[in-house]
Formats: sequence, structure tokens, C-alpha cells
Amino acid sequence: MPRVSSDQLAARRQQILDGARTCFADHGYEGATVRRLEQSTGLSRGAIFHYFRDKEALFLALAEEDAQRMADVVAEQGLVQVMRDLLRAAEAGDADRSWLGTRLEVSRRLRTDPDFRGRWQAQSAALTAATRERLERQAATGSLRDDVPAPVLARYLELVFEGLISHLAMGLPADDLDAVLDVVEHGVRAAARQQA
Amino acid sequence: MPRVSSDQLAARRQQILDGARTCFADHGYEGATVRRLEQSTGLSRGAIFHYFRDKEALFLALAEEDAQRMADVVAEQGLVQVMRDLLRAAEAGDADRSWLGTRLEVSRRLRTDPDFRGRWQAQSAALTAATRERLERQAATGSLRDDVPAPVLARYLELVFEGLISHLAMGLPADDLDAVLDVVEHGVRAAARQQA
Repeated sequence: MPRVSSDQLAARRQQILDGARTCFADHGYEGATVRRLEQSTGLSRGAIFHYFRDKEALFLALAEEDAQRMADVVAEQGLVQVMRDLLRAAEAGDADRSWLGTRLEVSRRLRTDPDFRGRWQAQSAALTAATRERLERQAATGSLRDDVPAPVLARYLELVFEGLISHLAMGLPADDLDAVLDVVEHGVRAAARQQA
Repeated sequence: MPRVSSDQLAARRQQILDGARTCFADHGYEGATVRRLEQSTGLSRGAIFHYFRDKEALFLALAEEDAQRMADVVAEQGLVQVMRDLLRAAEAGDADRSWLGTRLEVSRRLRTDPDFRGRWQAQSAALTAATRERLERQAATGSLRDDVPAPVLARYLELVFEGLISHLAMGLPADDLDAVLDVVEHGVRAAARQQA
């Protein structure tokens, strides 16, 4: 009997997540049928649902992966940098487009599926916490504007972030957006410390 | 044979639009079945599709109505005021929530339906034009910051607007958002003229 290492299990799980990500992005949640999931992952439905209980569990695992990845970048480099990275990815037309797709699908499901809201809340809270913590560190070093409370600035950055996701996911032009992010970035900084 | 006035025709058409708006908001585009459209409008499918060729035409008419309404408010009061109005409507939990629903459905369809993009472009352009014209008028009177080109500021406001729609449509909390809109509003003004 062949041994299946935990590395192999993890790789298979990741293969399913990556294929499903493309499938959800291209067809939306409802349009991602089991047959399409088989095609995009290159695996049978039996294999897919061995790893994930159902389509819902698969989608939530994807959304969780994204939220964690984002929170990590926010903690290190801030939410504006996450936005700049997204912009680069969209301009390059690379796979992160599908990341955007997942995120917009989350937005739609939050609206139409009240049960989903509860399941999403924890992940959304992680990003908010990472953003606030970073801003509070910046406030402590005096690099943040101090006429507006840090939580308001955090919410401001999140709102712009949500707008950027929506904009890019719709395939709208990304020209001018670097200059827009400069406006946003300078808008949260202490005036005396404005940098290029 | 009874005469049907053009007023009556217009009223019937509006009745269909209003019912369909709620239906799309509650169930999404795909979920708005003909049966549900009948229930939400209080009219038969025969009556509905007498006025609108198909569900797609009905949805586009709704989106067009919204885009025109928004462009009018933008021309008069600016995009930040449109955002403040949205915030009030969301806090009151009133019917404008369904307006948000339509808008988010537009976002999703722009992503998953390339044909829809072409049909939407004209309406999206109207809002952009209204925003830019207003900012250019403000620039001419010296009330706009002059270190960033007006088209960049217009794009900035649109990005925040898109983020607000997404945020509200997801049913996320609206607390702090008035303060966030203050940050946005002051961010486009000439520094010497900052007002409360």
C-alpha cells in the first residue's frame, strides 16, 4: 500500500484550490458547476469532495487563503502597498485577476446570503485588525496624520481598497490609479513627513 | 375601446422597474426568475415583457435609470454628496438598498459577461463626465486642490464611491463612514478653503 505523505496531500489540496479559483472567477459561484470544477482542477468530483465537503466549503477555503495572505502583506507593508500590488497584477493580466474574482464573489454573496455573512466575519476582521495595528504603529512614530483618529483612517483605506477591487474586477482601465493611490497614501500621512 | 394615456403607460413601466429592482436586489440577476418578477411587480409575465423585451433589457433599463439619477446629483452637488445620501439611505434601511443591489449586480456582470461591458460603457461614462465637469468648475473657482490634476481627483472620488457601494451592499456597518467621507472631501479641496 503506497504511503501518501502530508506534503502530497497538501499539494493536492492546493491544486484543487488553484483550479477552483480560476473556475469561480470565470463563471461566478453559481456558474462553477461540478463539471467545470473537474475541468479546471483536472481532478474527479470524488477527489475534489474528498478534500472539501462541498462547493461552499471550497469557496470559503479560498476566501480564507486570500484573507490571510492579505493580512500578512498589510502587517508588513500596509494596505496601500497591497493595493499597488493588485494594480501591478491587474496590469500584467496575471493570475491575480482570479483573486479579484473570488473577492467580488464574496461581496455578492454577503449581500444575497445572510448565512454567509457570519462565516465571513472572522476573515474580514483579520484584515481590519492588521490594518489598524499597522496604523497605530505609524501613529506611535509620528508618521500618521493626527487630526483624524487612526480607526477612521483604517476604515478609509479599507473603503478605497474595496473600491479598487471592484474597479479591477470589472475590468475597468487601471490608468491614473497609481496617481490615485498617491493621493490616498499622502492623505493618511503626517503633513510634515510627506514623501514621494 | 378605452384610451390608455402615455401617463398610464409610463406609470406601468415604472411599476415594473420598481418591482424588478427589489427582485434583483433580493435574488441577484440569475435568481430573479420570471415567477419572482411577477410577484415583485404584481403583473403577469405578458405585461412585463410587453414593456421590456427580456430580463436583460429590464435590468439595463434599471441600471440606466440609476446612472442618470446619479449623474444629475453629481452635477448639482458632487459625488461626495451622492455618497452621503447613500449613507443616509443605508442607515435608514430604506429602499435605496435595492439601488445598491442593482449596482453590485452590474459589477458582477461586468466581470463575468464581456458583452455586458459594451452595453454598460455609455452609462458609466455619463457619471465620469458629470464628476469631471463638476471638479473642473471647482478648479476654476480655486476651491479644488491644484497639486493633483482634476481627472485624477475625479478617478479618486469614483474609486471611493465604488468602495462605498460595495461596503453598503454587503451590509457592513456604516459607523465611522461619515468621518471617512470628511477625510475624502477635505482631501480634494484647496487647503486654504477647508470647511467643516
